[in-house]
Amino acid sequence: MLGNFTFHNPTKLHFGDKALDKLGDELKNYGPVVMLVYGGGSIKRNGIYDLVIAELERAGKQVVELSGVMPNPTIEKVLEGAHLAREREVDFILGVGGGSTIDYCKAVAGSAHYDGDPWEYYFKNWQPMTCRWIPVGCVLTMAGTGSEMDSCSVISSHSENRKLFYNFRNPDFAILNPRFTFTVPKYQMVAGIYDIMSHILEQYLSGTDDNTSDYIAEGLMRSLIVSSRKALVNPEDYEARSNIMWTATWALNTLIDRGKATDWMVHMLGQAVAAFTDATHGHTLAAVSGAYYRLLLDKSADAVAKFKRLAVTVWNVCPDGKDDAAVALEGLETMEKWMRELGLAMNITDCGAKPDQIEGMADACPICQGGYHILTRDEVVAVLKASL
Amino acid sequence: MLGNFTFHNPTKLHFGDKALDKLGDELKNYGPVVMLVYGGGSIKRNGIYDLVIAELERAGKQVVELSGVMPNPTIEKVLEGAHLAREREVDFILGVGGGSTIDYCKAVAGSAHYDGDPWEYYFKNWQPMTCRWIPVGCVLTMAGTGSEMDSCSVISSHSENRKLFYNFRNPDFAILNPRFTFTVPKYQMVAGIYDIMSHILEQYLSGTDDNTSDYIAEGLMRSLIVSSRKALVNPEDYEARSNIMWTATWALNTLIDRGKATDWMVHMLGQAVAAFTDATHGHTLAAVSGAYYRLLLDKSADAVAKFKRLAVTVWNVCPDGKDDAAVALEGLETMEKWMRELGLAMNITDCGAKPDQIEGMADACPICQGGYHILTRDEVVAVLKASL
Repeated sequence: MLGNFTFHNPTKLHFGDKALDKLGDELKNYGPVVMLVYGGGSIKRNGIYDLVIAELERAGKQVVELSGVMPNPTIEKVLEGAHLAREREVDFILGVGGGSTIDYCKAVAGSAHYDGDPWEYYFKNWQPMTCRWIPVGCVLTMAGTGSEMDSCSVISSHSENRKLFYNFRNPDFAILNPRFTFTVPKYQMVAGIYDIMSHILEQYLSGTDDNTSDYIAEGLMRSLIVSSRKALVNPEDYEARSNIMWTATWALNTLIDRGKATDWMVHMLGQAVAAFTDATHGHTLAAVSGAYYRLLLDKSADAVAKFKRLAVTVWNVCPDGKDDAAVALEGLETMEKWMRELGLAMNITDCGAKPDQIEGMADACPICQGGYHILTRDEVVAVLKASL
Repeated sequence: MLGNFTFHNPTKLHFGDKALDKLGDELKNYGPVVMLVYGGGSIKRNGIYDLVIAELERAGKQVVELSGVMPNPTIEKVLEGAHLAREREVDFILGVGGGSTIDYCKAVAGSAHYDGDPWEYYFKNWQPMTCRWIPVGCVLTMAGTGSEMDSCSVISSHSENRKLFYNFRNPDFAILNPRFTFTVPKYQMVAGIYDIMSHILEQYLSGTDDNTSDYIAEGLMRSLIVSSRKALVNPEDYEARSNIMWTATWALNTLIDRGKATDWMVHMLGQAVAAFTDATHGHTLAAVSGAYYRLLLDKSADAVAKFKRLAVTVWNVCPDGKDDAAVALEGLETMEKWMRELGLAMNITDCGAKPDQIEGMADACPICQGGYHILTRDEVVAVLKASL
């Protein structure tokens, strides 16, 4: 654990198939006007909406509904929510959904009482939040982003073909009921699983030091692999879905990046693809990772060493009688076999990308500085082309 | 992650060789009267006392000193501190030391404004704390107990030969500078390392479900083993000491017991030994664990299965061509080889225990209900005799 850092994560997690029973107590901490935020209405079909409304009514809250939050929520939608929250003097924002909904709630919470343009101020220029914040809580219905226990909000602008993030504040609490994820379609479930894996890998695949964070990351990956295979066979395997949900939360709540370098290049590449295609986040990550990781293995001996460790510790590759590069590559190939088992997009063409979008994607792609190899713009283009 | 639970750990951790620089900002959150609590004076010899006093003076605090907190702090010492804290109207308690000091601070913080007998009320009868709490912060100088990020306080009564715990509240913040542990004598350092290992094992060695918590526990153990060997060779290996410090914190802040059974029987046995011998905590745990774990392997097929997993995943035992019991035992023996490398007490005679104390220790030993085998009193006696 080299370097100096602070760890502080005050989000309260209520976990389990009775977790929603805790919502009433949590609601007592806030004023009477609650903005209920959700997406396309799947929570009405699966009954979660009714359960949440019943708790809000029991708590005597005045409910302001805001629905229609899309995957890759847009800045225009944020402005709509911020306007409504301010107009109706909302005391508390309750998001019911997956990462898109919770990311959206944070953006609304930090924008409602900000008088300027939040896209410019927060997402493009990372200026500090000084306006009044509306507290946020959430009922999670999809495991993946970890947004329930972090401050991050990812928002898209279609007019600018940009998908950018800003760190607002954590939700005060999160209700994590694994049963609420049972009805997530398989395409979304596996996208969430790969999002989790990518979060862990992007923190793990960097640095050459010996760091407890990496050992925790290995444990999380091993658990995720076991549970993902069970969930694929039986999406209603409570134990498997609960482990996936818990792993998602701990993959991105700052625990496993403490005291170490991180690389977020797969996310940058995937988000650049999503900005042009609106494809599902986890699938865009899967679609670019093979080409990016092969480039790393080609360019960096440190990458080979860390991929070898990953291969042996997480993917159970036997290293005996093989050179490091072979072990590293065998680990990557074993991972890709698992990705195909899950049914992930293995190229960006499957995400809807066209060759003539590559240059624009490269323009939209920030370059991370913490990985084993810092990409040139030409290399970004090369990785994207190799991912077609 | 079967079962329902809440995870909420708001302690703020400032980590690194510059972590003490954060103390001044933290102190701004409290009133003017600070009780500075420490042990036998080692912090004066190694200079940490001067550094902390300088920060307190810079913050304009009025300092009430309370020193002489012993290993295995006594309830009589708690009453002394509680009386002083109340008399001097202390606003904040800053503990500088290891787990004993921090445990002691929590007991004082919860007893200063309680009018009855805290030993009876808290430690013997686990009644809820309803009196005013004095907030606690700490500067950690020894890695092991995890007290810096949990609510637990372990206090001893020599007159009753009892060492009991109560869960008060977490410290608000903890300053974790690995360099502050460099001067800990080897006997104490290895005791801390085995305390950490035992914390992890007591949460890991229980249950038959597939649980992410166990995978995280395996990662923490693997990191601890690597770093403990480096620290043994060079106690000033910053990286190793920092990993040990961080692992200690995460081993007992409730993360790795979420959603699973736990067994705390090694701690109960070790604390019963300490109540009669006043021996160092970590060494008493090491001294009883071999006999207890062998009894588990003899009594429970579930224990054999979990010890086998431990052997393969953490102790790198090759399972090929061996039956489960042999793999499990080989793992335990590999662990004991590591324990001897560290120089831990491998029997309770080395902790100062006498055969005629066994019956009294058994009387002082609570029986845990969450392990692979629930001990009878005769088995407690048998384990202690086998540990002589």
